[in-house]
Amino acid sequence: MKAKVLVTTSRAKESFRSVSRLAEIYRLDELKEEELDPLLPAVDCIFTLFWPRSLDAVKLSRMKRLRFVQCELAGVNDIPFRHLSESVTVCSNAGAYSVEVGEYSWALLLAAAKRIVAYNSAVRTEDFRRPPSAQLGREVTVLKGGTLGVVGYGGIGRVVETFGEAFGMRVYALTRRRQRGGDVESFRGEAGLLRLLHASDACILALPLSKLTKGMIGTKQLSVMKSDGILVNVGRAEVVDERALYDHLSGNPRFTYATDVWWSRDGAESFSPHLPFLKLENFIGTPHASGPSAYVTGGPPRYAIANLLRYLNGETPENIVDRSEYV
Amino acid sequence: MKAKVLVTTSRAKESFRSVSRLAEIYRLDELKEEELDPLLPAVDCIFTLFWPRSLDAVKLSRMKRLRFVQCELAGVNDIPFRHLSESVTVCSNAGAYSVEVGEYSWALLLAAAKRIVAYNSAVRTEDFRRPPSAQLGREVTVLKGGTLGVVGYGGIGRVVETFGEAFGMRVYALTRRRQRGGDVESFRGEAGLLRLLHASDACILALPLSKLTKGMIGTKQLSVMKSDGILVNVGRAEVVDERALYDHLSGNPRFTYATDVWWSRDGAESFSPHLPFLKLENFIGTPHASGPSAYVTGGPPRYAIANLLRYLNGETPENIVDRSEYV
Repeated sequence: MKAKVLVTTSRAKESFRSVSRLAEIYRLDELKEEELDPLLPAVDCIFTLFWPRSLDAVKLSRMKRLRFVQCELAGVNDIPFRHLSESVTVCSNAGAYSVEVGEYSWALLLAAAKRIVAYNSAVRTEDFRRPPSAQLGREVTVLKGGTLGVVGYGGIGRVVETFGEAFGMRVYALTRRRQRGGDVESFRGEAGLLRLLHASDACILALPLSKLTKGMIGTKQLSVMKSDGILVNVGRAEVVDERALYDHLSGNPRFTYATDVWWSRDGAESFSPHLPFLKLENFIGTPHASGPSAYVTGGPPRYAIANLLRYLNGETPENIVDRSEYV
Repeated sequence: MKAKVLVTTSRAKESFRSVSRLAEIYRLDELKEEELDPLLPAVDCIFTLFWPRSLDAVKLSRMKRLRFVQCELAGVNDIPFRHLSESVTVCSNAGAYSVEVGEYSWALLLAAAKRIVAYNSAVRTEDFRRPPSAQLGREVTVLKGGTLGVVGYGGIGRVVETFGEAFGMRVYALTRRRQRGGDVESFRGEAGLLRLLHASDACILALPLSKLTKGMIGTKQLSVMKSDGILVNVGRAEVVDERALYDHLSGNPRFTYATDVWWSRDGAESFSPHLPFLKLENFIGTPHASGPSAYVTGGPPRYAIANLLRYLNGETPENIVDRSEYV
């Protein structure tokens, strides 16, 4: 008997052609409530992008056969782990967006370092007068010879490492395991994070949001950074403490925070932060466009579906999530 | 008898300590008119940054001993070649700014590709609503797998070539000579330029301004570029025809021109173009900050002074300018 896969995304059916040879596919958006209800106890796998609110604790408790959840996002922070039994394997799509998000993070870093946003605004003001060259020169950060901090040394971290090296930077990475070989210098733990932040001219946050990373960058961490430092976030906003960051940006006008990710409000990413970041010139924000840019090539669904196939074929899937980091 | 060097920049005296062992140094800004006048026929060398208006045709005609001009800028387009005899060797400071200008050009390129400026403005509008992910994904240009055009394969061109390669791009370069070896594919002449522009997803102009390059990018050249292409200019604005560019940007809203260099007016770079570029969203402009960012490290004066020393020591200096390209 074929396994039953409940698909909660609106991806084109053709994307799942390879799956349909091994499993029966049900699409949440095509099922009426009275059809979904009897199906729940028979579902073996869920394939999801953003977790649908309709699949709540009650419904999950009825999915007694559920053993596998494949997420199409790299971050699994919205998967309701506490309503999933420990017998359910959850896989992320880590790595599927690394190139595109890595490129995007470098754009944010350079926009801050070269003051592209501020200067582009300045030249458009009516009475613009170019500051003296010496002043412009001091305002711009040259990357060559500087230190790049990479916080989160997964797929994105490895991509930005290659950019940092091409730009002639020393690369310091916060890693869970000591790295062997390679040019990157690895740091671990709370003390390692502080040393990395202290040394960095620019730092890229590329962390998943979990119990371990939430609020990891707070007042203490920000305070050790250079006063004209650059902090880029392309992971999840909640890794940074919102109030601590706001106070830091207000007090250090030459420090720049450039982000593609935003704090959630009522369960969804909100582009209207509680605090008035959008009034600050040293805050650069983009509307979470990095991940979506990966969809043009079709990479992320392809990777996620390939991983689901591994599971269905009885192989060990990749990117198995350690649920203890989320529950 | 020591050679006499007239210095027209306001660089600190200590910068010229190595020169003063071989030559007598006179600083234009410290000389009264009645002191300069008798000195002119005795000057052997000029060391300059921006050519001073006071050193006009009349004064130059009196500098009968003048044999060498060292410019601290990479571009020598404001040197008055027509008033300099052919016996005067003019050297540029090509290469001295390559890293810093190369980095800056990559910041402009990525700001355009990832729509950092436009998105940062959008999120700050009061009623901002995030476009659907699929739309954001289509608006963002992923560099990996794309083609980078490098027009002007000197110091800056070679720096951006390494960035393009690190980003996984094919690199096409417009060169004067056929390149041997390396990963870059070289193109030559008018037809080669058109082929390069046609193939490029993003193109960086890093050309000096000379008789050969003025207006090189006009209507025809722009028309072969992709409608969502990116053109970055960090050389000299006049390489691009102002009217042709304005019409192209107006007619192709997805095409982006990102520049750090501006058309001159009355002999000086002007940040108020004749045409209303500053009203266009697909124009990104910065106030010629790329070169000045090199001064923080002190590289450019050091390189230029080292070249002056070569001349004074009887060695062949680097970066000898072919005056036929300017007169």
